[in-house]
Amino acid sequence: MKKLAHFDATLLEELISIRGASGDEGKIRDFILDYIDQNKETWKAEPTILSGKGFQDAIILVFGEPKTAIFAHIDTIGFTAAYDKSLIKIGGPRAIDGMKLVGSDSQGEIETELMIIEDDEGQRNLKYVCDREIDRGTNLTFKPNFRLNNQHVQSPYLDNRLGVLNAINAAKHIENGVIVFSTYEEHGGGSVGFLGKYIYEKYGVHQALISDITWVTEGVRHGGGVAISMRDSGVPRKSYLNEIIGLANKNKIHFQLEVESAGGSDGTMLQKTDQPFDWCFIGAPEDNVHTPDEKVFISDIEDMMELYIVLMKEMN
Amino acid sequence: MKKLAHFDATLLEELISIRGASGDEGKIRDFILDYIDQNKETWKAEPTILSGKGFQDAIILVFGEPKTAIFAHIDTIGFTAAYDKSLIKIGGPRAIDGMKLVGSDSQGEIETELMIIEDDEGQRNLKYVCDREIDRGTNLTFKPNFRLNNQHVQSPYLDNRLGVLNAINAAKHIENGVIVFSTYEEHGGGSVGFLGKYIYEKYGVHQALISDITWVTEGVRHGGGVAISMRDSGVPRKSYLNEIIGLANKNKIHFQLEVESAGGSDGTMLQKTDQPFDWCFIGAPEDNVHTPDEKVFISDIEDMMELYIVLMKEMN
Amino acid sequence: MKKLAHFDATLLEELISIRGASGDEGKIRDFILDYIDQNKETWKAEPTILSGKGFQDAIILVFGEPKTAIFAHIDTIGFTAAYDKSLIKIGGPRAIDGMKLVGSDSQGEIETELMIIEDDEGQRNLKYVCDREIDRGTNLTFKPNFRLNNQHVQSPYLDNRLGVLNAINAAKHIENGVIVFSTYEEHGGGSVGFLGKYIYEKYGVHQALISDITWVTEGVRHGGGVAISMRDSGVPRKSYLNEIIGLANKNKIHFQLEVESAGGSDGTMLQKTDQPFDWCFIGAPEDNVHTPDEKVFISDIEDMMELYIVLMKEMN
Repeated sequence: MKKLAHFDATLLEELISIRGASGDEGKIRDFILDYIDQNKETWKAEPTILSGKGFQDAIILVFGEPKTAIFAHIDTIGFTAAYDKSLIKIGGPRAIDGMKLVGSDSQGEIETELMIIEDDEGQRNLKYVCDREIDRGTNLTFKPNFRLNNQHVQSPYLDNRLGVLNAINAAKHIENGVIVFSTYEEHGGGSVGFLGKYIYEKYGVHQALISDITWVTEGVRHGGGVAISMRDSGVPRKSYLNEIIGLANKNKIHFQLEVESAGGSDGTMLQKTDQPFDWCFIGAPEDNVHTPDEKVFISDIEDMMELYIVLMKEMN
Repeated sequence: MKKLAHFDATLLEELISIRGASGDEGKIRDFILDYIDQNKETWKAEPTILSGKGFQDAIILVFGEPKTAIFAHIDTIGFTAAYDKSLIKIGGPRAIDGMKLVGSDSQGEIETELMIIEDDEGQRNLKYVCDREIDRGTNLTFKPNFRLNNQHVQSPYLDNRLGVLNAINAAKHIENGVIVFSTYEEHGGGSVGFLGKYIYEKYGVHQALISDITWVTEGVRHGGGVAISMRDSGVPRKSYLNEIIGLANKNKIHFQLEVESAGGSDGTMLQKTDQPFDWCFIGAPEDNVHTPDEKVFISDIEDMMELYIVLMKEMN
Repeated sequence: MKKLAHFDATLLEELISIRGASGDEGKIRDFILDYIDQNKETWKAEPTILSGKGFQDAIILVFGEPKTAIFAHIDTIGFTAAYDKSLIKIGGPRAIDGMKLVGSDSQGEIETELMIIEDDEGQRNLKYVCDREIDRGTNLTFKPNFRLNNQHVQSPYLDNRLGVLNAINAAKHIENGVIVFSTYEEHGGGSVGFLGKYIYEKYGVHQALISDITWVTEGVRHGGGVAISMRDSGVPRKSYLNEIIGLANKNKIHFQLEVESAGGSDGTMLQKTDQPFDWCFIGAPEDNVHTPDEKVFISDIEDMMELYIVLMKEMN
């Protein structure tokens, strides 16, 4: 049955090459809109495309008569250039001495390195190494560095360009359903509130699948299949979880169950909105989380793609 | 005037015997729905009952033309079984070595004990003692252990089965008003958002009374009467507080005023929603909070019941 | 062009003399409503005034056909009197031994001092010095102490009476736009949710300017002009920031760019609502933040006023 899962490494590499730190998702939004425009005619069903005024840099695709929505966040972690060559985190990047960062400001393209300086009180300060001052407020992100072999893919921003790739792959097969490309997930959230409100009030949709990447842990391993998360810092509703696990079993998907105490996603944020969303995080596990060396097994990505195709068919 | 306050110990014990950790409130929801169905004809007014699709595992009762709503959360704290016999907290249970936990998984009913293991770095890990692995994601809750004498009741989950009992008791007397049986209060919240939105948008209700259990502290004591909380981590609106305290005085209710710096409830969560809710936490004080030995004085429960009956009459 | 910026020190001193800790904004709300009533006929356009039921102690002014809203919070930090002469913080006041506090309870006006008592474990407890017990739940705020010279103003509660003054000054010039006088900003937030929802649903407004006071830091200095904040703990949307900075440049406003890692405002709270608000914090910088000695340069206040007049004209 693996035929439906098409891991498109070329598209993934393209998605990763487009910058889009939280709050600055305009370019990746435009790339995805262009891709949809060029490909939607080949899809099983053509969606209504919602973007622009009132949607910030997010996108909603509505197919047929939907009951369930995929949420895939299009923003990434990164850094903001502040005063005196210091850097402030956007989201939770791991800071590693010498890591390569890129961006652009009024003087043009920037390639720089991160430097960690410990002051007298043992406080770690993050600086960029550059002959000139970078404009205040400029965003810097990990320099793309895409590596692929038969077993795995390794790159910055698999979290969450893989989740976006998975949503795009599902789009080919969806007859009824919603895909939400959300923003701000890595830094404080804020877009799933209005996005969830929109699809709930207009279409009655209150079931969400969170297409995102999780962590390899003691209980979740590379090659073990897509992880269905039974909880992280948030607790999804038991009856909704049971439905999803039942469908995964019925359809003989290769999956593993995750039970963690920490971590959050668009799911935990959906729960804090004023809409009655059920949510479940479903994603391939990754190592070296939030570094330029994120690593995910291809078989797990394909399992993830299979499960989403199945769920969007059965839950819509 | 104490005749209106009927402390129904039998119903309380039943409520406590039904499991319902946050996110898994289906069984206690069904129990409450059944109870309402069997008893509503004896009530002063029959409410409209809202539950099911769009309400998750919560319930709303609407009586007449409402202005004020009681919120009573039906979920409890507990633990989730994770990998390698470890336990992750749901909400904030106090972990005590040897405490008895119950649950059920694919292999049947479970009775186990909690064990605290300190590792080399002094980190406390929670484990369950069991010959077999419990299914990943299974919820475990305190084993019921109901103790009653003339002065007090002692049991797990007085927080918040007592708040639920109080709401059910009030239901007998309400002509106009709303009762919300909410979920997820112990773990991150999330249901009062859509529940509050529903009753505000449909009925214009934006006044809330939080029927929940508070703590015995330096300023709030057993037998001192129902506690009206002037603040905890959240600050209710002063003019709303003054109205409630005025009504309690006018009706000669035995109450005490609470002023704390910590703690939260459905009230603090209602304030974070997009609806203009006024809220006030009103509940009997309890000792041994979030343990299997929670203890509340019966006179304080009766004072709580009296106050809710009075407030729901005067504020609707 | 400075002629539009009228720094009305008399009105500022009056605003500061009115008490209004978070949750207790009734008096300052009434003062602002009275001021509007007495002055609106002299304004360029008369606004629709929304307050009362459904708005708690907040106020919304709607001018013409609005696209952009000013948010100015009318609450202040302070303390709540608790048990045994102890004090609990409202918001984040800096506690300084001997600082003068005022309030009133059932026995009349109160003037007292704060005392910091360190217990055996080094825990700092806050107490008030008073012959009698103050009623539980009474709010105490900094005693007014207004100091003005040619260069700067110094007083408690410049944060955010200056932001309110700025909004009132802008009101004289606005033809299209919204002004929101919000509450609860200093303590947990909660009013911008329903206020933002109201102006988004009724008027389609989803652009916000946060009229509040920021900190003098390494990168933001007294006399450097109004600070446009490119980020604090929250990250505003880049395209919205760029629009505002572009308009400030075009109109030759004296401003400085802020990039901080900490701090929040009604802006960060608006982002957590279910409405698609763009927001930007724009305010004069202040020293001695959250003490009775807050200090702001008058030239920075005038720059702030200029910028708001320009933005409300160009963005509506």
